Amino acid sequence: MELAEVWVLRLSHRIARDVRVTSHVALTARAFGARGMYFSGDFDENIIKTIRKITGLWGGEFEVQYVENPLRFAKEWKSSGEVIHLTMYGLPIKDVIGDIRKSIRRKLVVVGSKKVPHEMYLIADWNISITNQPHSEVSALAIFLHELFEGYELNLNFKNAKLKVIPQPRGKKIVKQS
Amino acid sequence: MELAEVWVLRLSHRIARDVRVTSHVALTARAFGARGMYFSGDFDENIIKTIRKITGLWGGEFEVQYVENPLRFAKEWKSSGEVIHLTMYGLPIKDVIGDIRKSIRRKLVVVGSKKVPHEMYLIADWNISITNQPHSEVSALAIFLHELFEGYELNLNFKNAKLKVIPQPRGKKIVKQS
Repeated sequence: MELAEVWVLRLSHRIARDVRVTSHVALTARAFGARGMYFSGDFDENIIKTIRKITGLWGGEFEVQYVENPLRFAKEWKSSGEVIHLTMYGLPIKDVIGDIRKSIRRKLVVVGSKKVPHEMYLIADWNISITNQPHSEVSALAIFLHELFEGYELNLNFKNAKLKVIPQPRGKKIVKQS
Repeated sequence: MELAEVWVLRLSHRIARDVRVTSHVALTARAFGARGMYFSGDFDENIIKTIRKITGLWGGEFEVQYVENPLRFAKEWKSSGEVIHLTMYGLPIKDVIGDIRKSIRRKLVVVGSKKVPHEMYLIADWNISITNQPHSEVSALAIFLHELFEGYELNLNFKNAKLKVIPQPRGKKIVKQS
């Protein structure tokens, strides 16, 4: 199965209050098959280090990079790929995911913090809602990737992992690999 | 379609660092069709107020309640329902969700913070993983409810909503209802 390459753009990170949610966005992106996460807002070296450490242990090639001007970045992305903005105001995912799956061009999935500038809605090729209720950029991203990759992302193999979980009905089993 | 009644139990909430993630757990639970969220750890009136305010605006009957002893609570739950613990160490969701869907007994979905006591793994009827990678209790909960309800949860009708989004390809449209 050929999967589109997906990157996530997390807007307006604020060190004071977003550290954990931005980490959850990054870890969800990684676990569900995205290639990396860009973030704008406050530059935050700890986010980059934390996710790099987890990737070192659990494998794969996930990258985290800072972006200074997210609107310009998203605009430029369109020369080689698609921009998909997840927002509770957008079109229901079930109505559009079929069309989105048809293209294997690389995708930038934009998730916001409180106020996403209106221009992002105009730059995006797709503004998509995962329900029209307020919830979380973390769950929106998870459902989007799950629908895009059709469950294939639940069985990814992460290369060069030092740690691997052996699923158990009760308790924990981790094996160390070298 | 008859849906099982689902409640979420969010363990070990810490006011200092979990406010936003616990809110995202609650909002995800609500948006994806759970009946309410219990939480243990620090008692936090703000979480209860914040979610109540959102439910007042966006409709439905979602409840948030504090639980002092989550292990005892989960044990007692089993007299009338099932306990499902989401953990990266558990059995892959795809292997077990079919069996879980068969029962319409009410379900308590447990999501942890850092260290979930070993006893919870023993109390749970199911320990389920949404990938065996580290990511987020928010995304794990979203995928679990999405798989349990089979997409039905993406089109829920929230009764007595004062606000309602009209999905748009670009921009925002909210209608106020009285």
